[in-house]
Amino acid sequence: MQATVGIIMGSDSDLPVMQEAAKILEELGIGYELTVVSAHRTPDRMYTYAKEAKGRGIKVIVAGAGGAAHLPGMVASLTGLPVIGVPVKTKSLSGVDSLYSIVQMPPGIPVATVAINGAKNAGLLAAQMLGAFQEDVHERVLAYKESLRTMVEGKAEELEALGHADYVKKYLEE
Amino acid sequence: MQATVGIIMGSDSDLPVMQEAAKILEELGIGYELTVVSAHRTPDRMYTYAKEAKGRGIKVIVAGAGGAAHLPGMVASLTGLPVIGVPVKTKSLSGVDSLYSIVQMPPGIPVATVAINGAKNAGLLAAQMLGAFQEDVHERVLAYKESLRTMVEGKAEELEALGHADYVKKYLEE
Amino acid sequence: MQATVGIIMGSDSDLPVMQEAAKILEELGIGYELTVVSAHRTPDRMYTYAKEAKGRGIKVIVAGAGGAAHLPGMVASLTGLPVIGVPVKTKSLSGVDSLYSIVQMPPGIPVATVAINGAKNAGLLAAQMLGAFQEDVHERVLAYKESLRTMVEGKAEELEALGHADYVKKYLEE
Amino acid sequence: MQATVGIIMGSDSDLPVMQEAAKILEELGIGYELTVVSAHRTPDRMYTYAKEAKGRGIKVIVAGAGGAAHLPGMVASLTGLPVIGVPVKTKSLSGVDSLYSIVQMPPGIPVATVAINGAKNAGLLAAQMLGAFQEDVHERVLAYKESLRTMVEGKAEELEALGHADYVKKYLEE
Amino acid sequence: MQATVGIIMGSDSDLPVMQEAAKILEELGIGYELTVVSAHRTPDRMYTYAKEAKGRGIKVIVAGAGGAAHLPGMVASLTGLPVIGVPVKTKSLSGVDSLYSIVQMPPGIPVATVAINGAKNAGLLAAQMLGAFQEDVHERVLAYKESLRTMVEGKAEELEALGHADYVKKYLEE
Amino acid sequence: MQATVGIIMGSDSDLPVMQEAAKILEELGIGYELTVVSAHRTPDRMYTYAKEAKGRGIKVIVAGAGGAAHLPGMVASLTGLPVIGVPVKTKSLSGVDSLYSIVQMPPGIPVATVAINGAKNAGLLAAQMLGAFQEDVHERVLAYKESLRTMVEGKAEELEALGHADYVKKYLEE
Amino acid sequence: MQATVGIIMGSDSDLPVMQEAAKILEELGIGYELTVVSAHRTPDRMYTYAKEAKGRGIKVIVAGAGGAAHLPGMVASLTGLPVIGVPVKTKSLSGVDSLYSIVQMPPGIPVATVAINGAKNAGLLAAQMLGAFQEDVHERVLAYKESLRTMVEGKAEELEALGHADYVKKYLEE
Amino acid sequence: MQATVGIIMGSDSDLPVMQEAAKILEELGIGYELTVVSAHRTPDRMYTYAKEAKGRGIKVIVAGAGGAAHLPGMVASLTGLPVIGVPVKTKSLSGVDSLYSIVQMPPGIPVATVAINGAKNAGLLAAQMLGAFQEDVHERVLAYKESLRTMVEGKAEELEALGHADYVKKYLEE
Repeated sequence: MQATVGIIMGSDSDLPVMQEAAKILEELGIGYELTVVSAHRTPDRMYTYAKEAKGRGIKVIVAGAGGAAHLPGMVASLTGLPVIGVPVKTKSLSGVDSLYSIVQMPPGIPVATVAINGAKNAGLLAAQMLGAFQEDVHERVLAYKESLRTMVEGKAEELEALGHADYVKKYLEE
Repeated sequence: MQATVGIIMGSDSDLPVMQEAAKILEELGIGYELTVVSAHRTPDRMYTYAKEAKGRGIKVIVAGAGGAAHLPGMVASLTGLPVIGVPVKTKSLSGVDSLYSIVQMPPGIPVATVAINGAKNAGLLAAQMLGAFQEDVHERVLAYKESLRTMVEGKAEELEALGHADYVKKYLEE
Repeated sequence: MQATVGIIMGSDSDLPVMQEAAKILEELGIGYELTVVSAHRTPDRMYTYAKEAKGRGIKVIVAGAGGAAHLPGMVASLTGLPVIGVPVKTKSLSGVDSLYSIVQMPPGIPVATVAINGAKNAGLLAAQMLGAFQEDVHERVLAYKESLRTMVEGKAEELEALGHADYVKKYLEE
Repeated sequence: MQATVGIIMGSDSDLPVMQEAAKILEELGIGYELTVVSAHRTPDRMYTYAKEAKGRGIKVIVAGAGGAAHLPGMVASLTGLPVIGVPVKTKSLSGVDSLYSIVQMPPGIPVATVAINGAKNAGLLAAQMLGAFQEDVHERVLAYKESLRTMVEGKAEELEALGHADYVKKYLEE
Repeated sequence: MQATVGIIMGSDSDLPVMQEAAKILEELGIGYELTVVSAHRTPDRMYTYAKEAKGRGIKVIVAGAGGAAHLPGMVASLTGLPVIGVPVKTKSLSGVDSLYSIVQMPPGIPVATVAINGAKNAGLLAAQMLGAFQEDVHERVLAYKESLRTMVEGKAEELEALGHADYVKKYLEE
Repeated sequence: MQATVGIIMGSDSDLPVMQEAAKILEELGIGYELTVVSAHRTPDRMYTYAKEAKGRGIKVIVAGAGGAAHLPGMVASLTGLPVIGVPVKTKSLSGVDSLYSIVQMPPGIPVATVAINGAKNAGLLAAQMLGAFQEDVHERVLAYKESLRTMVEGKAEELEALGHADYVKKYLEE
Repeated sequence: MQATVGIIMGSDSDLPVMQEAAKILEELGIGYELTVVSAHRTPDRMYTYAKEAKGRGIKVIVAGAGGAAHLPGMVASLTGLPVIGVPVKTKSLSGVDSLYSIVQMPPGIPVATVAINGAKNAGLLAAQMLGAFQEDVHERVLAYKESLRTMVEGKAEELEALGHADYVKKYLEE
Repeated sequence: MQATVGIIMGSDSDLPVMQEAAKILEELGIGYELTVVSAHRTPDRMYTYAKEAKGRGIKVIVAGAGGAAHLPGMVASLTGLPVIGVPVKTKSLSGVDSLYSIVQMPPGIPVATVAINGAKNAGLLAAQMLGAFQEDVHERVLAYKESLRTMVEGKAEELEALGHADYVKKYLEE
């Protein structure tokens, strides 16, 4: 399957978070590529990645990083493609540092920022961007949202039937 | 010109901020529509807007709001189109409240968040999403970024020629 | 028992927190209903819930949500009943995101916000609202507060008798 | 008109903010009383106020304070009536101190907190509590919310007609 | 031994933190009394405590509380004695709420605030206040500070002798 | 009059804030000395000041500083006298930096911290410390607090008589 | 004079802040170069600047930027020279965003961060780095610090002579 | 090996963090000394250390501290050498208190601040300062950065070969 979404992250330690982007794209049947690109430790690799992504057929780049998280913004400065930034949670500042470093971009270089550790939503947002032009993708996005609705309604129904005490005992107790 | 970007905001008081999205789209030759939709004061209007946008040819929605800024997230819950959220600066919390209310969306409903008051970047990000599929838009985005480069280099050259004291006197003193 | 308080939450994962509202209402002998309603994943269900609550005899709605916590505010925009919002603690931002999303509502659409994870107080606040018009409920609220006073005074007495070292050993050591 | 809402504030310097609560109650035809009660400078007065409010026919108390804002919580500890707290904006911490001091109440003593400087919403919330039991008040609350809807829709219509540039020129330029 | 320091806390769950104040006073040979006084659950008890402390020979009050921590400030409003406030760490806001509620007191009613969970320092500060007028207490405070100096210098010496690797192995590895 | 309170500040630019400490001490008839001592720019002067204060009859030191506000804590490390710290408001961080630098002292070296810009309360707190041992000072502190009570009650009376609209017009309109 | 310090900033709007670095270097007789280099708008220029600085004789780079301030960190990733970062104050987040983006660098790529808007200190820190190896520069740094000491002591002397009221009148009243 | 870097910390409990500075210096073949110096508990020792460091051949001082972290700034006030500050993470405020206390230094006394717990980067930054004048150190710094590049590229290659699922299983699962 042709990759149309590029998923990159600043460190392989971000992978447990960032693989959620890959998983939702797999679930939606969208091709992607995934690798590590560090703005600070591999700046040349980042340049090359950002400059060549469009030529490979990539339509949107998902970039995750933590702390002084420069990867999404620097990639955005090097390409005309839309870039989605995922602020990865950090130990001392819980990802507020990552969030501010990614979202507070200056005029001219936007990064589409999602929630702290919100890699799943980054993948879904990429799918929605594709879906604006690819009707089949749009349909699959809608079906996915519909499945969320059904799941919530199913839980609501069971909670109403069981009452809170039994529901907690059955599903939520450790 | 066919509108492909929908710009909405929670209050007309957001317009001085949000019109920057419209202006950059005009500069890039992209059709848009712009109006006020309040999640809290006109919830039915918001439902209708979100449900009908795609049918009118809208490819991406830019939504700005301040405080408990529910508009971008609620519109995102009602459409499969990508939604860009602009956290509008607030008096007491400087827009941190708006930012958290917009960016911290739960799994399944992403909002592509830009900087506080970053409406210009929201417009540009919309253009980049379109440009991923419309080569002429992509070219205009690149040309715009190129113009930023040229502008910065021109300023750098003049600053180097004048020195900081004269440059500040000429351009930056109140 | 006729339900006069409606307790809703954005996700069943909020139930361990939110069931404290139900428990205190049970303790005070006040009828309630409890279910899951997601602003983002079941927007239509939320509309219906908010629009129909009053007709079912509900006098006050308690709504809990975390992150970009839109449920309390959106329900408040759809009903004339008082809505109590419970900001649920979150992993990255400890519930500050939930708190800001719930409390910073714009003029015209208030949400009565309690502490982060303060579901017990939400239930008690609902009882106090009822008690302003139902003298028996008011009496039970006062009796409950009196029981808190007695409990604290009992602990104070024992602490004074035992001294801090023995009290910690007896009650507080893990 | 019989006062059913008590509005108090920690200092007369809070009055420009807090009078918005009075104004909306006047607009909704609800009787209120309004005075200054300082938790720190007049603790005895606060005790008396909280203890006697219900006897005077007060159904809900609105209390505003800034900084280490103890008034709402202390009044709540002294009465069984519902207490609405208004965190007043402060110079150094913008009201975050007021907000935390008011909203983070311990189990047993809730305060219904509204937005920083949200006195108008405090008044409206009081009205909604009354409206849960007084149908005429409920009707007036709904009519007020309807008027907000109409106002927003009117502005939206004019903005769509004028376009952003002319609308800003006409209404929003300083 | 005559108690000259009164140690109070809002809840017995604060005791593991607050007993550090008692321990340092014991170490310095200063008499104290210690109990639970809740501003919100036992307001009358708080009034009595604050009003009668001076008459019992108390010279300074140490008050610890968490969340909307009103105890230190309310006691300060009810006595002319100096009050030291200890912000107790909280689960959601790590004690920032306690800190703001205690330190941001309005003009006229100071609270001498120490670090979050800083009960040991609260006891020491009380001793320093006494020591300003009781030379023997002052001497013991100086001796205590001298013992800290000696302890640090001893550790420094050993660290320099062992090197970081062996020192960590010997003292700091879990 | 013999100085028993030492007021120092890190920079003469702190004087407009810090002179409030002097003014309240004058009002209470307490002798003080006041000067500039910079921890960072005059470390030797700070050493001498801290070491010699007690010998001059000083009973408590009030120290104000902004930003990385080391003065109060460093003076506290060099004396056995109680030290009251005033976090001075700063331009970028509004005094949160000053507050954290002053209040978060390590075990062994307490600083009695008051509100941001709370110099008046620092002076009053110093008076309360003296008053614990000097009955005449204690009486004057109580009289001052009584005058606050009277002032608030006077304002309350006038507000109740005038109503909010006229009161704002008379006293609070700019 | 040979430039040994390179001063760069992300935008010419940072110049009023950043020229303080130049001024202190001038005062200390240290050669510098100063220009605009934008990480986001002129990434190639940034690469060239960072790669060639050492060859031109630059010993340390001072880089200022605001918001998602990537310039200092990206330059640090492209050179082995020490890089000093100046977080420039921003409108919405007061420079906390700039500070986190600059200081929270990952292991391997340090940035020597100074205070928000602390460009003067950035210049001085650069001088101190040079002074560690150039004794004449070290001497001038010490002389500068000595001049600060003298200035503070002069002010202290005058304040002590005049008293706070006259000093404020003479120097600090607007 | 002659020590050219002095590493100090406020408490031996900071050693597990601070020894990372020593380790990277060892790896780069740079001589250092390491000990405990407490600004608050051993102020005289701090004076001596700061005053004598240069005479022993120290070129740069690395100082780590947590909470009201005065050590780096006070040492900087007592020497003309460059001082690198490491904000050590704290329990209640996660090191934000340490960061503000270290980075927000007043004009005239800079501290080169690195990330919270960023001791490794502090050591590396010290090496970069030396490397600006010692070509062999500069070469080793560049080689270290090159090794980081190689390591990241190796991981990227393996991740691309394995895919995210297998890579997580092989390296990142607990």
